[in-house]
Order: sequence, then C-alpha cells, then structure tokens
Amino acid sequence: MTEMSTARRSRITPEREAELYRAVLDLLREVGYDALTMDAVAARTRSSKATLYRQWGGKAELVAKAVRHDKPVSIGDIDTGSLRGDLHALTLRSDDCEMEQNSALMRGLAMAVHANPDLLKAFKEYLVEPEMAEFRHVLRRAIDRGEIRADNPAIAFVPHMMIGAFAARNMLDEQPPTQAFLLAYIDAVVLPALGAPTTTS
Amino acid sequence: MTEMSTARRSRITPEREAELYRAVLDLLREVGYDALTMDAVAARTRSSKATLYRQWGGKAELVAKAVRHDKPVSIGDIDTGSLRGDLHALTLRSDDCEMEQNSALMRGLAMAVHANPDLLKAFKEYLVEPEMAEFRHVLRRAIDRGEIRADNPAIAFVPHMMIGAFAARNMLDEQPPTQAFLLAYIDAVVLPALGAPTTTS
Repeated sequence: MTEMSTARRSRITPEREAELYRAVLDLLREVGYDALTMDAVAARTRSSKATLYRQWGGKAELVAKAVRHDKPVSIGDIDTGSLRGDLHALTLRSDDCEMEQNSALMRGLAMAVHANPDLLKAFKEYLVEPEMAEFRHVLRRAIDRGEIRADNPAIAFVPHMMIGAFAARNMLDEQPPTQAFLLAYIDAVVLPALGAPTTTS
Repeated sequence: MTEMSTARRSRITPEREAELYRAVLDLLREVGYDALTMDAVAARTRSSKATLYRQWGGKAELVAKAVRHDKPVSIGDIDTGSLRGDLHALTLRSDDCEMEQNSALMRGLAMAVHANPDLLKAFKEYLVEPEMAEFRHVLRRAIDRGEIRADNPAIAFVPHMMIGAFAARNMLDEQPPTQAFLLAYIDAVVLPALGAPTTTS
C-alpha cells in the first residue's frame, strides 16, 4: 500500500469503510457495474460524493476494493503445514451459499471488465495481484517443505487452474462451484499436476 | 440427430447452410446476441424469416449451430496415436488469430447464456454435449492404449481444465489464449493430472 492511499484511508473508520463496501456490493448485485453510480452509493450510504471520490478516486477502485474486502479470510493467514491442507482451507473460506452469490457477482464483473479498462486496471491492482502474491507465498512454502519441485512448470498455471475451475463449472455444469466440487478438483487435478501429495499425512 | 431435424435440414444445400452460418457469426460479432434479430439474418442472407424458423426453430438454435459449424475440424477426426498428440492436434485446429476472434465471440455468448435459458439449452444440446462426447472418445482411446487409468478422477475434469484455461487466460493475463500457451498448459497441467505421458514417443 502506498503512503498516498494510507493517508486517504485514514480519514474514515474501518467500520464505516466496511459498511460502505457492503453497500457497494449490494448495489452491484441489484443493478450491475454499468448502472452503478457514485450518486447511488452516496445516497445509499448517506455520504457525500466528494468523500467517495477523495477516498477511492472513482467507481472502478471503489468496486475492486469492495470485492477484495469481502474475502472472508486472507490466503496469507492460512498455514496448515501442507499444500493440500492450505488449498482445502482456502476453499473452505466460503460456504456454498457465499460461493453462489460471489459466482454471480464475479460473472457480472468479468463482463464489465472487458468494456471498462479502468475497472480491469483496478481489478488487477487491488484484487488479482494481491491474491496472486499470496498464492505464490503458499506455493513457496510447499517448495520449501519439499512437497513440490521449484522447477515444476505447473506452478505458473495454478491461478489458471483455480480460476478456470470456477468459470468452467458455471458453463459446463450449469451450477455454481460448491466446496465438494472444488475439493475434488484440487485433489484430482491441482495437486497431481504439481506432483504434490494428494493425501494429508 | 433426430429424423425431424434431418428432414428440416434437407431443404437447403450444405453450401447455403454454411453461408447462412457465416452471416450469423458476422452479425453476432457486429451486434452481439441480444441485438441479433431473425429479421437481420433474413435480410443479410436474402432468405425469408419463414425459412429460417422452419429450418432452425429459432435464434438460439441457429446461433448454437452456427458456432458449432465454425469449428475447423471435428475432434472425432483426430487420432494421432497418443493422448498428447491428440490434445496438441486439437489445439492446433485454430491459429492464434482465429482463437482471438473466437475468444471474443465466446465471451459475448457466455454472457448471453446467463440471461437466455433457450440459448443455454441450445448450447448444451448442439455444442457442449457433442464436443464432450468427442472428448470422451479421445480419452477412451488413451485408456485403451494404457496411457491413462480408467479410474483416474481427473478424467471427469478434463473439460473443466481445458475450458478453464481459456477463461482464466483472458481474465488473468489480459490476452486471448495462444497456441503456445495452450500447448504448455496441456503438457504442464492436463497430462500430468491424468498421469499420462508428457512426451510423445
């Protein structure tokens, strides 16, 4: 986080910030990204548009940070002692109901990203990159423990494997990914591709 | 194919059918699914709307069949003697330029599917199911050759792995999947997950 954004953030309390993010996600689910306006966020949260712009710069950054804030547990807080344990814990952060809601929300945002370069940029900066950095951290620990080889070419594809499972589940099976689906996918695909143990000892 | 649809199909020549499908794909790229009308297809192809409806039933079936028809080579025609060879040949069916065009088209249709249940149904019937059946055929041969075990749990996830790679590539790397990306993904992820040879002997 830059000093600039720390300075901007310090002007509201964490509780107020969380409340604003919840309102943004509610509005996103109700009207979608394109129809979401800063006016509506200001009205819903009884804040001034000037405050919103000062704090977040614009709609894209506000939406990306609201989605980021909604993640129940940071990947970085997970450390079970095995790669399988870490990836399973990661999956179990969200229950099936949350996953279904997020799946619909992310589908809408994935569409909006293609028409809004500023949203794509904010997504990469505030959502994809931090999540990928934490993923790399989990994989680094698995390498250090000797569970996977540092030169395994599948390491670079772990984000594609995980995100792809979400996307393909919706498309192929006409249902949102469930915990059971993702745990089975991790054991059948992700761990074998990485050459990692598929049972937790 | 049912007798009914065979009877419907026989009324126009294969050349005329191909021409109609090309026009539908052009229109899809120009205006998207929601704005595409049977009137526009009729005008563009100088055919009557009555003919279009008699032949295809409706917009959803026409679009799904147009996309299906555009596939350069049927998976079923590929038989290289190894699973790696078959999956690579499958990838090399489309060059990078075609993949970029198809990627944009499929992204648009993936969005439309969520708002149009009849399009989802037509996609499953005319596009997903036939493609999955051919995939199962390719995997069946690999099992018969002893390249993969019949009880490998990754077999059920091959469609998710392949479709997921396409979807995630767009989202994570901000570029359409290229042949080089997909070949590397097959060798690093799909074949190791299946426990199949990663070199072609």
